[in-house]
Formats: sequence, structure tokens, C-alpha cells
Amino acid sequence: MHATSGQDDTQPHVVIVGGGFGGLYAAKALRQAPVRITLVDRRNHHLFQPLLYQVATAALNPSDIAAPIRSILRRQRNVSVILAEAASIDTQRKRVVLTDGALGYDVLILATGATHSYFGREDWRAHAPGLKSVEDALDIRRRVFLAYEAAEREPDEARRREWMTFVIIGAGPTGVEMAGALAEISRHALAHDFRRIDPQQARILLVEGLPHILPSYPPALAENARRQLARLGVEVRTGLRVTEITGTSVALGAERIGARTVIWAAGVQASPLARSLDVPLDRAGRVLVNRDLTVPGHPEIFVIGDLAALEQEGALIPGVSPAAMQEGRHAAENIRLALERQPLRPFRYRDRGSFATIGRGAAVGQVFGGLRLSGFVAWLAWVAIHIVFLVGFRNRLLVMVNWIYSYVTLQRGARLITGDPPSLT
Amino acid sequence: MHATSGQDDTQPHVVIVGGGFGGLYAAKALRQAPVRITLVDRRNHHLFQPLLYQVATAALNPSDIAAPIRSILRRQRNVSVILAEAASIDTQRKRVVLTDGALGYDVLILATGATHSYFGREDWRAHAPGLKSVEDALDIRRRVFLAYEAAEREPDEARRREWMTFVIIGAGPTGVEMAGALAEISRHALAHDFRRIDPQQARILLVEGLPHILPSYPPALAENARRQLARLGVEVRTGLRVTEITGTSVALGAERIGARTVIWAAGVQASPLARSLDVPLDRAGRVLVNRDLTVPGHPEIFVIGDLAALEQEGALIPGVSPAAMQEGRHAAENIRLALERQPLRPFRYRDRGSFATIGRGAAVGQVFGGLRLSGFVAWLAWVAIHIVFLVGFRNRLLVMVNWIYSYVTLQRGARLITGDPPSLT
Repeated sequence: MHATSGQDDTQPHVVIVGGGFGGLYAAKALRQAPVRITLVDRRNHHLFQPLLYQVATAALNPSDIAAPIRSILRRQRNVSVILAEAASIDTQRKRVVLTDGALGYDVLILATGATHSYFGREDWRAHAPGLKSVEDALDIRRRVFLAYEAAEREPDEARRREWMTFVIIGAGPTGVEMAGALAEISRHALAHDFRRIDPQQARILLVEGLPHILPSYPPALAENARRQLARLGVEVRTGLRVTEITGTSVALGAERIGARTVIWAAGVQASPLARSLDVPLDRAGRVLVNRDLTVPGHPEIFVIGDLAALEQEGALIPGVSPAAMQEGRHAAENIRLALERQPLRPFRYRDRGSFATIGRGAAVGQVFGGLRLSGFVAWLAWVAIHIVFLVGFRNRLLVMVNWIYSYVTLQRGARLITGDPPSLT
Repeated sequence: MHATSGQDDTQPHVVIVGGGFGGLYAAKALRQAPVRITLVDRRNHHLFQPLLYQVATAALNPSDIAAPIRSILRRQRNVSVILAEAASIDTQRKRVVLTDGALGYDVLILATGATHSYFGREDWRAHAPGLKSVEDALDIRRRVFLAYEAAEREPDEARRREWMTFVIIGAGPTGVEMAGALAEISRHALAHDFRRIDPQQARILLVEGLPHILPSYPPALAENARRQLARLGVEVRTGLRVTEITGTSVALGAERIGARTVIWAAGVQASPLARSLDVPLDRAGRVLVNRDLTVPGHPEIFVIGDLAALEQEGALIPGVSPAAMQEGRHAAENIRLALERQPLRPFRYRDRGSFATIGRGAAVGQVFGGLRLSGFVAWLAWVAIHIVFLVGFRNRLLVMVNWIYSYVTLQRGARLITGDPPSLT
């Protein structure tokens, strides 16, 4: 043990798996608690996922929206951060089984989140990547900008159309934001960069299986968002299910659209770690937690964030970052109560509002449970909220510089295609 | 042909292979020339290579020092940029053979540069990556920060020492800068982030086969740099050749040093494209060009930058970015002269100075052929020069914000480990 360790081996050991919003806020809320904490994540960084689409669309750099977990928690001496991948939970022996070792716990907080679901069509993943990690975002960025490069070199008219057609599947906030950003790239950022193609002719489709985009928003706001998207040139197609995706086309029932770049923003599938708990899960694989966020039959295990399924007033608490933060804090509070042998308190989600951006100066949102905003005012509110919640002063400053740059010049600062030298065929 | 094309098909076709300093400056210098230009690069971005070590050591983001080539040249209507990889040059039929097609030329400028040489030990490459591309820099960044993560989890003392030992091979400017930056990371940026290890105990070795570090600098400046490195805790070992590199150790003759992170900054090996010209090359594979930068027997082919070997006053013109820029401009000027049927002019390299940074406020350099600087003054001059030469206003501003942040806080802003979830074994 190195002298700088601030941990007391006689205190109960709280293991937190996952350094997203839920896990990080739980760790922070246990700052004063008489426990020693180990936070395990397979990545070294906490990711501000709501802005990930801005990395995918070259407005921001990965490190603008991500920070090393151990750096965020460096001053909290009762936390130790380790970089490791959890393979399963051994609830009998109270151990987190890692891919290279194991870690005993007295109390466990599981916060490993969820990813997209391909509804049983795992073969679509290769053609239609989702957007959950920094790697995903860089992969999508690479695909988008390579598509324009390929179009510039493509002599065949039909194939050139395929390269210049972008399909986004799923019109929740991420899908809407991706579609708006891709439209802005084609209309502005790339407008004058090519000699043989005109990027403004790119076709951007947003496909949603339900009758409306932004299904979790009030219909009037969703309709407003649809109009704002249409103004940017996005084709919105609702009430249509994808039936096939190949490398060169997307089938919507009988209709087949030639498209070489497809982005998946639909479905929810919880982290597979939940299965090893051997407790009831919902259809998406989420843990059906008690109201106090513990797992039925395991008062020493808390599940929070996107991995937890909990209803409130007849609806599932949404898989958004504010819910994860609130659950993280609540789990920490309940752990404190348990240590003092007091009864645990039920969790109550407070919806303080939600926003989706569509483009430069364009957004929709609602705050304080009722007030609805759209257009420029909504966009300004969105910018302010996201700047405030970004972790770390430096990131905030850089993100603001990047945003002001993009806003004024309509350019995208991070248009690098990285990875192996590309094959365009 | 799209209407925005500004190219005139009746004009001579100049093909430039490589969008580094040489190729980019050649293209820019041909702005007013009555030619149509195609610039080919296998990457979409121009890279400000002198600052690449700052990406590898997490001070800067890739897009701070790289910009899309087509974006840099967007306003120059006589240039078309294509993303493609040149496989060989068919000098008979005057064609650049691409991995997927071919491109005829009237005049060719080859500017594909050089990489490191492993002196015939290609098997060392996997254990000791070099630093030439954005991908290399992110790979090295990943290795460096993963090494500390692995050390934090390593119970065995000897293996922990291996994880905390970093060896840089080759003490030219890149090696010196890497060594200084790695020392600063261990002494400052990571100082308080770990619980079981003390990053300040990390061992950083800089190994050079020649008797002095910075062999191209005057001995007094090199000695000064060595003292500045020693102050940061870097162990400088000169006059020693590496005889073996495994994943866990480096052998220097009879001495074996346990080290799991090795960075290669030695040797020069020209781009293999030179071989297909079928003209005499030097030992490093560089083209022995005429004084006017053309290839012997091929007045229509120019070779510039690190791919060219040309002596001036008994010494090879160094493989540095100012030489590549000057050669790019000179090749463009000679193409203009050739089009006017005037005699070509011999190239003359003007050495305006060179700098190597060692750390925060520490550098050595010489300017105007004689004036020598060291310490803080040299560092300020280095900062000023690099800010001025960075391509694009936005990059300059962001790089300054990042540098000021790093200077004031001693933190590193871009400490992300990206790529697949890591294996530490």
C-alpha cells in the first residue's frame, strides 16, 4: 500500500461498477461516508454521453467531453479507481468477477448502463453502428467523411447517390441530433470543399418506427422539431420499420433506399452483467429494482441508471443522464442510512426538463415540467445546461471556443479521418 | 464534372503525392500558375508533425494539430484533392498507380516523406512504436497511460517497476521532447491520481547511440539540453546501442532494463514509393535529386521533403519541416519556369533556426544561424514559432488555450485511453 492511499481497510467496502453518470455521482455522494470505495470501469474515462453526437459529427474532440475518472476523483481519498472489465457478479461469495481477477464487496452498486438493441439482427451492427462510446463516435465520423471522399472519386452516378445518402434509424434525441448535425455538415461545412460533387445534394433520412419523432416529448414539440428538421433538408419518415440493412441499402418494407452510411439510434439493451445477478429482468434486460434501488433479495446490491427498470406514476423512469445522477446520489444516501441501521428511502425521479438540439440555433425542450421552448431560445438553454454540466473547467472553456467557432463560421473543427488508411470500395 | 470545378482540362496536369509540408506548400505556391493540380494523400488531413509528441503525451488533441487538406485548399480553385494511396510510379506512361486506379500526370511532385528505420529489426516495431501519424500518437498515448493503470493493479514489485519504466530510443528532437514530456507527466500531471503507486517514481530513460543527444545541434546546446532533462529526472544514456527489445525489456549491450513501454525515435527510412522510380537512392532510400529538385533523367518529376537527399556545403539538408516547405515552394517556382521554357534554378536551403523543447519553460534552440538560446527564453520563442506556423486560426487559438491550461495547472487535458477495452496482461 502506497502512503498516499486514503483508504481504511476496516471500513465496509463499496464497489461501484461503471463510471458513467450513475456510478460517478454515487462515488461523489459517498465522499463523507465511512466506507472505502473501489470504482471499476473498463475505460479510463467518464464520458459526457449527451454530447457524443458532436464528436461523431466533428464539432468536438473526444477529450472535450471525456475526462479520466481517476482525475475527476483524485481529491476524494476514500475512492480507488481501477481499470478492469467486470465479467459477472458472484452474489453468493459477494465478489465482482473481473476478466483478470476478482474484487470482494460488502455493498455493490451496479451502473454499467445499456446499449442499442438491434432487435435480434446482430448482423446489422456492422453496417449500422450505434453511438455509445468514443470509439463509436470516431467510427461514425470516419464513415461520414469517407463517404464524401468516396463520392468525390466515384464515376458511377447511382453509386455516387448511395455514398451521398445517410440514413439514421431511430428518432429519439440522439437520432434527431445526428440528423440535424449531418444536414448542417452537408449544407455548410463541406459546401465548398469538393470539386466533382456538391455536398449540399446529400440526402439525409431519419426513420422512426413509431408515428412521431421524439416519442417521449409532447406531440406539439415533436411536430415543431420535425418542421425544424425539414427546414434543414432532413427527410423524416415515421411509422416505418427497417426490414433489411446491407452495406449499400436500407429496406423500409417494400421500399429500398440506396445508402452506404447508416447510423443506428434505436432500441435499448441493458448491459449483460445484469444476467449474472439471477434476478428478474425486463424485456430489455434491465433489473427490476425495488423502490429503494436495491435488487430483490439482495439488500447489499444497488442497481442504478440505464441498467435499472423502475416505474413511477405508470411510466418507466427514462434512461437519461439526470435520472442516472439522481439515482447515484440516492443509492449513496441509502447506503449511509443502511450503515446507520435506518430504513432505506424510496427513490423519486424529478424531471427537471429535457432538450434536443436540431442544429445551429435550433432545438426543442421543456423545463420545470411544463414550460415548452423551441427554436433559438431552446437552443440557448440547451447550450447553457450542457456547459454547466460538463465535467471540469478546461473542457467547458474549450467546448465553448469550439461551439462559438462552429456557430460563427459554420465549420467543423475536428474533421479528421483516423484509423488505417481507408479502403473506399 | 460538377459546376464548382475550377479546373481547366487544357492546362498541364501537376500531380502532387503527399499532403505534408512539402506537398501542401508546393500546391499553395502554384496558386497563380496556369496548371491544374491534383493532390493525392492516403489521409484526409495535413499533420503538423513537429507537435505530434504533444498528442502522444496528452497535451493536445489530434485535431489541434491536423486539418483536412481539402479544407486548407478549399479556396484554391485549380486544386483537386483526392483521398487515395499511391502504390507506384509508372514513369514510362507518366502515371501514378493507385491501389484503386491510376492518375496520369504531366508533371509529378513526390512528397511522401520518410518514417523511422528499425535497422532491419522489423520485429521491434510491435514493442517500440514510432511517432509519425495521428494513429501512432494515439497508440503511444494509450500505452503510456495504460502502463500506469497496470502498475496500479500489479501486486508484484518487479513487474510494477517494468510498467513504470519508459525507454525512448533516439535522442533527436522528437526523442528529447518525448522524454521531457513523459517526465512532466509522471512528476506533475499524474502525481496525485493513484492510490497504490507513486507516479513520481517512474523511470524515464533516453537512449542515444551517438556520443551526444541532439546530434544536429552544437555540443554546448546539447549539453545544456542534457542538464535540463536531468533536472526533470530523465536518465540520459549516450553512446549505447540497443541490441534487443522484447515486450518486457530493452537490452543495451550486456545491460538489460526491465521496461514495458518503449518508444522508437531513431533512424530514417524513406517512403517505399521512391523505389518505383528506378533511379539511384541513398542508404535510407531517399532519392538523390538534382540541385533543381528534379530526378536525374526525369525533368518532369520533382522530389521534395524527407524523400529527397540533397547535399549543401558538404552536409545533407536536414529532414525538417522548414526544409520541406522551402523545397515545396522551390519546386513550384521551377515548374513555372519550365512552363515558360526558362532554365530551372538550383535550390538553396536557408536554415532559419531550430528548437527542441524539453518541458514547461525549458528548451534549447538557435536562430539566424548563430544566436543560441536556452531555458525559458528558448521555450517562449518555440511557442511563438509553433503558434504562428499552425495551420488555421482556430487551431492556434485552441492550442494556446491548451498550452496555457497545461502551463498553469501542469495537467494534461487529453488523457483518454481509446481503442478496444484494454488487456493489461
